Amino acid sequence: MTTVDLNADMGESFGPWKMGDDTALLDIISSANIACGFHAGDPDVMAATMARAVKNDVGIGAHPGFPDLQGFGRRKMTMRPDEVAHLVQYQLGAAQAMAKAAGGAVRHLKLHGALSNMAMVDGELARRAYDAALQVDPDLIIMVLAATPMQEAAEALGANMACEIFADRGYNDDGTLIQRGTPGAMITDADEAAERISAMVRQGAIIAASGREIEARIDTICLHGDEPSAVAAARTLRARLESDGVTIKRF
Amino acid sequence: MTTVDLNADMGESFGPWKMGDDTALLDIISSANIACGFHAGDPDVMAATMARAVKNDVGIGAHPGFPDLQGFGRRKMTMRPDEVAHLVQYQLGAAQAMAKAAGGAVRHLKLHGALSNMAMVDGELARRAYDAALQVDPDLIIMVLAATPMQEAAEALGANMACEIFADRGYNDDGTLIQRGTPGAMITDADEAAERISAMVRQGAIIAASGREIEARIDTICLHGDEPSAVAAARTLRARLESDGVTIKRF
Amino acid sequence: MTTVDLNADMGESFGPWKMGDDTALLDIISSANIACGFHAGDPDVMAATMARAVKNDVGIGAHPGFPDLQGFGRRKMTMRPDEVAHLVQYQLGAAQAMAKAAGGAVRHLKLHGALSNMAMVDGELARRAYDAALQVDPDLIIMVLAATPMQEAAEALGANMACEIFADRGYNDDGTLIQRGTPGAMITDADEAAERISAMVRQGAIIAASGREIEARIDTICLHGDEPSAVAAARTLRARLESDGVTIKRF
Amino acid sequence: MTTVDLNADMGESFGPWKMGDDTALLDIISSANIACGFHAGDPDVMAATMARAVKNDVGIGAHPGFPDLQGFGRRKMTMRPDEVAHLVQYQLGAAQAMAKAAGGAVRHLKLHGALSNMAMVDGELARRAYDAALQVDPDLIIMVLAATPMQEAAEALGANMACEIFADRGYNDDGTLIQRGTPGAMITDADEAAERISAMVRQGAIIAASGREIEARIDTICLHGDEPSAVAAARTLRARLESDGVTIKRF
Repeated sequence: MTTVDLNADMGESFGPWKMGDDTALLDIISSANIACGFHAGDPDVMAATMARAVKNDVGIGAHPGFPDLQGFGRRKMTMRPDEVAHLVQYQLGAAQAMAKAAGGAVRHLKLHGALSNMAMVDGELARRAYDAALQVDPDLIIMVLAATPMQEAAEALGANMACEIFADRGYNDDGTLIQRGTPGAMITDADEAAERISAMVRQGAIIAASGREIEARIDTICLHGDEPSAVAAARTLRARLESDGVTIKRF
Repeated sequence: MTTVDLNADMGESFGPWKMGDDTALLDIISSANIACGFHAGDPDVMAATMARAVKNDVGIGAHPGFPDLQGFGRRKMTMRPDEVAHLVQYQLGAAQAMAKAAGGAVRHLKLHGALSNMAMVDGELARRAYDAALQVDPDLIIMVLAATPMQEAAEALGANMACEIFADRGYNDDGTLIQRGTPGAMITDADEAAERISAMVRQGAIIAASGREIEARIDTICLHGDEPSAVAAARTLRARLESDGVTIKRF
Repeated sequence: MTTVDLNADMGESFGPWKMGDDTALLDIISSANIACGFHAGDPDVMAATMARAVKNDVGIGAHPGFPDLQGFGRRKMTMRPDEVAHLVQYQLGAAQAMAKAAGGAVRHLKLHGALSNMAMVDGELARRAYDAALQVDPDLIIMVLAATPMQEAAEALGANMACEIFADRGYNDDGTLIQRGTPGAMITDADEAAERISAMVRQGAIIAASGREIEARIDTICLHGDEPSAVAAARTLRARLESDGVTIKRF
Repeated sequence: MTTVDLNADMGESFGPWKMGDDTALLDIISSANIACGFHAGDPDVMAATMARAVKNDVGIGAHPGFPDLQGFGRRKMTMRPDEVAHLVQYQLGAAQAMAKAAGGAVRHLKLHGALSNMAMVDGELARRAYDAALQVDPDLIIMVLAATPMQEAAEALGANMACEIFADRGYNDDGTLIQRGTPGAMITDADEAAERISAMVRQGAIIAASGREIEARIDTICLHGDEPSAVAAARTLRARLESDGVTIKRF
């Protein structure tokens, strides 16, 4: 039986400001990446999000980012590796406590925004961030972008790992993402995206825009929840996977 | 054998700014209350402080405060009880992770600044804050001001508890602190303070300015480390306790 | 000819998070109270909001609040009067620069949230805050709640002043607001609110729930823009005022 | 008569944390670069620093930096040029208001930390930052590193300008700074530094480590105040300049 996990970012409201349709997404996904207060989320938002994730039996992940609320963690900051290690540990610990108080536990960790973009191409940075997290919880599942230096870093650490691909992004022949702004970078048609992802999951390979297949471990698919059409696209993908015989199940 | 713990606030530097003489104090105290990033401390400062506490075999405490860096957590903020609960949990979790990564563990929790001042006179607020912390770790030792609503709140929750008195403050006949600005509020002579505290510890009672004794559980003595004379006063107190046959030992 | 100003809070988005329907409100109001980055707003949001206000020929106001983004400036903070003075000056200056760069200028100042609630009942706090602002710009128009210690404070300083009443709140016989949670506190029917306000403006008096009239200077009416129905209610009020012969014009 | 200005960073305390010996430096310098609250400084610190600068008749400069208090504005952040423009305007405005309230006025602007380091090699970024500041005050004096893209940017904007050299850094033959960590990067001997700077000022040229002279406009010399020896070195430099017949005077 083929199974795959669906993950999405969540808990990205802050104070009086709302973001995303967490309630709708929680019915579709099997794992939630929950913001930890540095780029989004606050202790109250985290408590509410953790409670909702526990109630929906969705896997809980810590989603640490740069300390840049205004920039939503999307602006690169040049930090020393030990600074990155500490900010990952701090946010992971905060998430663990909020999850525990809600009757759950943090199962996985995924880097957010610019921190993720930097670690995606810098294996040493990824290794430092992941190693720091594993010092806090050696059983933590590290969510990595499949077939990138992130995956190599997690493997080198002997970590539990979940490899992800993007539901709505096109891939180059070497398994890297087609850069935003280039034709084929974004798959905007929900049916096309669903068909493509279902094929990748069943074949255990990233399928590039050219049709070329790159063998890859695919444990989870990253959905995006920020835009109004996101929930509909997520539903389309889940339905397609299920009708193709793929079971949605947390990694 | 009479034993008592000595505690002090620690890890109150932030970014490039230094505060306190943590290194000197760590040779004197048996428990450290470590700032958690909201009123002081940052992930890097916390990592360094945790490592130092572990190395010195000093008990580690989380010291959560209001999210008010500029005000050092000393300005009252009117928050709903659930907001207080969540900010305590968040900071406690962050401290747990930083302690774990340093090879230690958080043993106790003490409220900081205005949050402590509010909980000291509002038993329901204290109960909410402590209950929130115990949801994260039921074995946590709650540090309370002896003979206050804080102590009642911790007892009502059936929590592990450490009751503290202040090394440098005068007490009224009802066991409350003499208000700052009033004669006798501060005991500025180190020898006088040491003699007074040693007597309290050996007699198991708060001794008011009038000489009246109020029976009280005394587990730990709070030292202050912000001022240059603080380290000398702390040394004087420790020496006096030891020469009076009191063993310094974490609660 | 009877004239009155309509004001609303604006520029309350932050980073990636949106709040309010500023574009719609700008067609209705004559003065905008623009958040200054402490409780809402950021330099980018301020720049965009200032530009929109200039384009719509709407009067620009600085709307300083407590440094509490998560709490949206709605949680009381105990600050010394000089701390309040400095945070008002800082935010006012930031707003002046953003307005200048957009081709406009700050004409008025209105306190936000908990800072306003505290100043509303504490004339000395109001006086310190207003005096601090006038040190930065002696010609600034101070927006006060009519018939409160705020008005007295602005008058005592000899300040240019605009007195406001609320479009959607009921009043007691002494001119104070009926407390939230009490019957009659909120006027939820847009037509009823419009009729009531129009009568007050034309008669130059606050009309209490009992029907009693309290003579008052009324320069501006505060609209609320946070809720979806707010824009519709604002349009209803403006239309009613105009059909009753009142001209909408900045103070 | 040869004159030159001496400048130093100032007002870099934050909340309860102190930094630098502003009082001592104010007797030596003629221009102060005052932190604006994003990387250091807060409204209270700014108010006190402005008052001291006014009292000492020292020229006031706004010293904006990245919004990164923990990193003291020394960590690069990738921002869009319009984001940089707005954060410069916001901080400049805040400084103007605090200066005005203290009876002074902001005369000049100098970029801080990583923002300065980025603008030093990126003329377009410098141009955007300076242009943004000039929109707020067209008469503002822009302080630039002599003989860098910063100087070109300020000249292209037709701005009032002050060109600075560092008191304690070695220069390459092309007028750029010898990179930190390389021999000759730092001039640690106060007398040697003073002699070298005095020669540069009198000859109107940067003198490289090799002895080569690069003609340059030198209006001001940057002193560093963070370290204990800084004040002594500053005094040595001032005394040497004066004994060599150079008058210390704000640009």
